Amino acid sequence: MNASDNRRTVLVTGAEGLIGTVVRERLGDRYDLRALTLTPQPYPSYVADIAEYDALPPAFAGVDAVVHLAGSPAVETPWEPVLRNNIIGTRNVFEAAREAGVQRVVFASSNHAIGMYEIDGAPSIYALGDPRVYDAHAEPRPDSLYGVSKLFGEAIGRLHHDLHGMAVICLRIGTVRPDDDPASEATLQAIPEPLAFLNPKQRRERTRATWLSHRDCANLIACALDAPADWAIVYGISNNSRQFWSLDDARALLGYAPNDAAPI
Amino acid sequence: MNASDNRRTVLVTGAEGLIGTVVRERLGDRYDLRALTLTPQPYPSYVADIAEYDALPPAFAGVDAVVHLAGSPAVETPWEPVLRNNIIGTRNVFEAAREAGVQRVVFASSNHAIGMYEIDGAPSIYALGDPRVYDAHAEPRPDSLYGVSKLFGEAIGRLHHDLHGMAVICLRIGTVRPDDDPASEATLQAIPEPLAFLNPKQRRERTRATWLSHRDCANLIACALDAPADWAIVYGISNNSRQFWSLDDARALLGYAPNDAAPI
Repeated sequence: MNASDNRRTVLVTGAEGLIGTVVRERLGDRYDLRALTLTPQPYPSYVADIAEYDALPPAFAGVDAVVHLAGSPAVETPWEPVLRNNIIGTRNVFEAAREAGVQRVVFASSNHAIGMYEIDGAPSIYALGDPRVYDAHAEPRPDSLYGVSKLFGEAIGRLHHDLHGMAVICLRIGTVRPDDDPASEATLQAIPEPLAFLNPKQRRERTRATWLSHRDCANLIACALDAPADWAIVYGISNNSRQFWSLDDARALLGYAPNDAAPI
Repeated sequence: MNASDNRRTVLVTGAEGLIGTVVRERLGDRYDLRALTLTPQPYPSYVADIAEYDALPPAFAGVDAVVHLAGSPAVETPWEPVLRNNIIGTRNVFEAAREAGVQRVVFASSNHAIGMYEIDGAPSIYALGDPRVYDAHAEPRPDSLYGVSKLFGEAIGRLHHDLHGMAVICLRIGTVRPDDDPASEATLQAIPEPLAFLNPKQRRERTRATWLSHRDCANLIACALDAPADWAIVYGISNNSRQFWSLDDARALLGYAPNDAAPI
């Protein structure tokens, strides 16, 4: 960047992960991106473990907004890493952001915060035309300790919004896959552990309901960074025919408009 | 107890605290109470720090129900003890209960899980006839890290209910005071830290709105132990004229009927 650069400085935690890579590859023109990663990378990065608070402040200095993606991403993560990476780590990220005067945090929450509704509704909830649809106003029903940790993150985000005036946008992100191909059988068959009871046809329908393309994922995160909204919990999926999570709040509060859709 | 004793065995964590003392003094005839405390007491007790999982299993063996009161009770508690006592400790209590096959956990949550509504509404929310009333269906708006930890406890409680069939009743307990006297000026003036902006008249009205007598507190906990309901989050206050938390769910789901009321 140079002195005439008007782009905002955005720190991406977990920049080495799947969604971090989507952000780095697709939003680098739009923001002055800064990476925080657990290990050294081929690109410039602040190397720190978010569970260790004292390592964080240098990465947050002068930052306009944070996209907080770091943490254990798997729904089956046991308690100790959930505690360390998702609870302590997320508290530390919000605290470091507050301490540095960061004005906006976009937090990668998860549909697993209320995954139990889906487990109860599966597999008929994936059927075309099934009327059930859930949004962030549904009462918490996590399906895992991971889901509990995401509710914790949303709650501490809300606290930072209410108490410190920080804009906080929580994204309950759907199914993002490395190959970004909703027709690939490998992508369609990969399923979160609590849904392991689904058969191959049901898995295919589930992934088609929850898919989020890389392009839409980057768009959604940009909307969360740019929108005037200063508090929201929204779902992030493409415009899928079988969707059972509402995009109404993402559209209304963030101006999100998906460009892609999984095949029916 | 003796062999003909049909009372259920109830483990009370934090039995040395204010509400633990209410339980010990008022419910000892009704249940075979077992105490878990942080330090040795004049009465029989399992001495353990709930943040240390390995110390817990002996206290949970053969227990029918747990009343989980242990933790840091003050809304202004900083992060490190909130993490240790309220987050790690509460997870450990649920895990030990699950491991031991305990069928029911009554969890001392807190009104501070959504305390921000009150802060926004104060002081007019305390006025007689003010129509605002909140229940556990209001979206999370904690007023503190302590409040965040109580939302965490409710979420992990819900997970244990949904995943392991455990009955879990969360009580958002109001204002319980050592002297149990809602006319005492010392009781009326003591106020949680986020409400320190209230003047003496407002503090008096607030405490009169949120007061919970020792008798009603013991009744509520007994209702939570005995009710057929297997999941609930309810408020616990006496039948106060200025109340702004709903007792509807406590009455409907648990059969709670307060006997006392703060003076108008």
